[in-house]
Amino acid sequence: MPEAQYDVLGIGNAIVDILVQTEDDFLSENGLSKGAMALVSAEEQRVLYEKSGQAIESSGGSAANTLAGVAALGGRAAFAGKVKDDQLGTVFAHDIRAAGVNFTTPMANEGAPTATCLVLISPDGQRTMQTYLGACVDFAPADLDPDQVKAAEVTYLEGYLWDPDPAREAFLQASKIAHDAGRKVALSLSDPFCVDRHRDGFIPFIEEHVDILFANEDEILSLYQVEDFDAAAEKIRGVVDIAALTRSEKGSVVVTADDTIAVPAAPVEHVVDTTGAGDAYAAGFLAAHTHGRDLETSAKLGGLLAAVIIQQIGARPTAGVQHLLQDIDG
Amino acid sequence: MPEAQYDVLGIGNAIVDILVQTEDDFLSENGLSKGAMALVSAEEQRVLYEKSGQAIESSGGSAANTLAGVAALGGRAAFAGKVKDDQLGTVFAHDIRAAGVNFTTPMANEGAPTATCLVLISPDGQRTMQTYLGACVDFAPADLDPDQVKAAEVTYLEGYLWDPDPAREAFLQASKIAHDAGRKVALSLSDPFCVDRHRDGFIPFIEEHVDILFANEDEILSLYQVEDFDAAAEKIRGVVDIAALTRSEKGSVVVTADDTIAVPAAPVEHVVDTTGAGDAYAAGFLAAHTHGRDLETSAKLGGLLAAVIIQQIGARPTAGVQHLLQDIDG
Repeated sequence: MPEAQYDVLGIGNAIVDILVQTEDDFLSENGLSKGAMALVSAEEQRVLYEKSGQAIESSGGSAANTLAGVAALGGRAAFAGKVKDDQLGTVFAHDIRAAGVNFTTPMANEGAPTATCLVLISPDGQRTMQTYLGACVDFAPADLDPDQVKAAEVTYLEGYLWDPDPAREAFLQASKIAHDAGRKVALSLSDPFCVDRHRDGFIPFIEEHVDILFANEDEILSLYQVEDFDAAAEKIRGVVDIAALTRSEKGSVVVTADDTIAVPAAPVEHVVDTTGAGDAYAAGFLAAHTHGRDLETSAKLGGLLAAVIIQQIGARPTAGVQHLLQDIDG
Repeated sequence: MPEAQYDVLGIGNAIVDILVQTEDDFLSENGLSKGAMALVSAEEQRVLYEKSGQAIESSGGSAANTLAGVAALGGRAAFAGKVKDDQLGTVFAHDIRAAGVNFTTPMANEGAPTATCLVLISPDGQRTMQTYLGACVDFAPADLDPDQVKAAEVTYLEGYLWDPDPAREAFLQASKIAHDAGRKVALSLSDPFCVDRHRDGFIPFIEEHVDILFANEDEILSLYQVEDFDAAAEKIRGVVDIAALTRSEKGSVVVTADDTIAVPAAPVEHVVDTTGAGDAYAAGFLAAHTHGRDLETSAKLGGLLAAVIIQQIGARPTAGVQHLLQDIDG
């Protein structure tokens, strides 16, 4: 097996976030489920946007955020996802490359515009998301570069990619290419509602294809439709090589066939915006893991980067975090 | 004279800012003059953008920021400026309306895209700006709504609007309409380089048309090509009814025919991003002035809003500032 050119290749929806500070009343008045991500039409998003306050725009996308985090920690990162050749597509492409991530997926010249996610940030820092998938629905197997998949130590897939049909095909194909090349496949379950939409597809996919699974407590409970975290952890044990399960302020638990490693959360002074906390955890974990660190250290770095992200607005590290991977051994 | 419907109508370039944290080395390597605003072509901006780090996008424009500030303080605000009907034009229009500002200028359906300003923020919070004027160059007298001008107690013009030719025509026309209706005209000098480009036009325009002038120290020195602040203040005395001259950490000085009122700066713990400090000063000053406060109080409110803005990223107030206008009397 040739040496990997990338530590992690991410495949995901390429989205620009529209971030708005909001009051919880606005969520209830508009029938929104606090903390959830909902898929909406362009028109539904437009109506809600017009009612929303002043915004700022910032590149997002779950796997894209993770890969930006991997690169920020000094990892070799690549990302594949679909934007249109429009102003927000240019913004997305610029930011992911400026983060140090290799991004070569061709922009669409026609069809739907670049995807946008209206992120409503509550005073407690929780975010409620309304995503219009736009050009993401056109990401197809032809957009995959098989050589890039073969060249990545880990191919990381976001669960949200299960929503658009052609992307799901690409998702399955990437997993096969990766495994045929002797590489690892990682999956993030993304969101309990996403799990609910796709449970019947996810369970066999995880059993057959996934080596490293990322899920938060709500997601793993939803996957197995159980109500007890320990029961869910036993369900996933041995199904994948590594299950990294996050539990917000309780830290994370790494479950392997033989081991259960609990790691406390990193200290957080003030939660500003939880957007991207799970993405950052996966970034820290994968950066450490692909640099030969043990599972406990990997979980610690995941927690550290998540703590950085929830204390700022936006889902990608803005402060220099390169030192975290070095410091984690100290 | 009928009662004014708006406290302030702003006319200015309608711009979306692209905000990037940068090191001073990046400025010198690229031959940029720290702290200045330069007009660049789309291609020049693109080249610099590609070299720049991850960005966030936020609606900007000098007068637009001021009017968002006036509205945030509880003033009745309107804005006129030109965007294209594209993604960033939609962002600009949404944000200015969400700020509570009446904005009815028709979007351009063809021609150049919505204007963008690449704002490079140094570690000390200073910003260096590269502006591509895009659709702003098509703002013309026909875009003015004379009834709106007549309905505003103050028509506020940004000096930057002197750059595009048709906008300058609109600028002159708005001043005449305002004065014919018995209203006041305010002008911000915008930038010492802008003053340098247009000194020969500005001086007679100020003498003939301006009632309230906003300028920082560098701008008023540049206008009269003198090196001493007190000398510059004497030059402007009596030329306009009110000259509000800002001096950064030294506060501001209000000069009228008979009076000179110095107001210290509001306390600032940590400068994050100076983008929009002058715009915010004008907002605070005009909101208080049009609500019948005296010149000292108006200058104080200007200083207070400027202090809020330089302690955050972005040029428009994100925190609730409505109370400042009430509190200023206390």
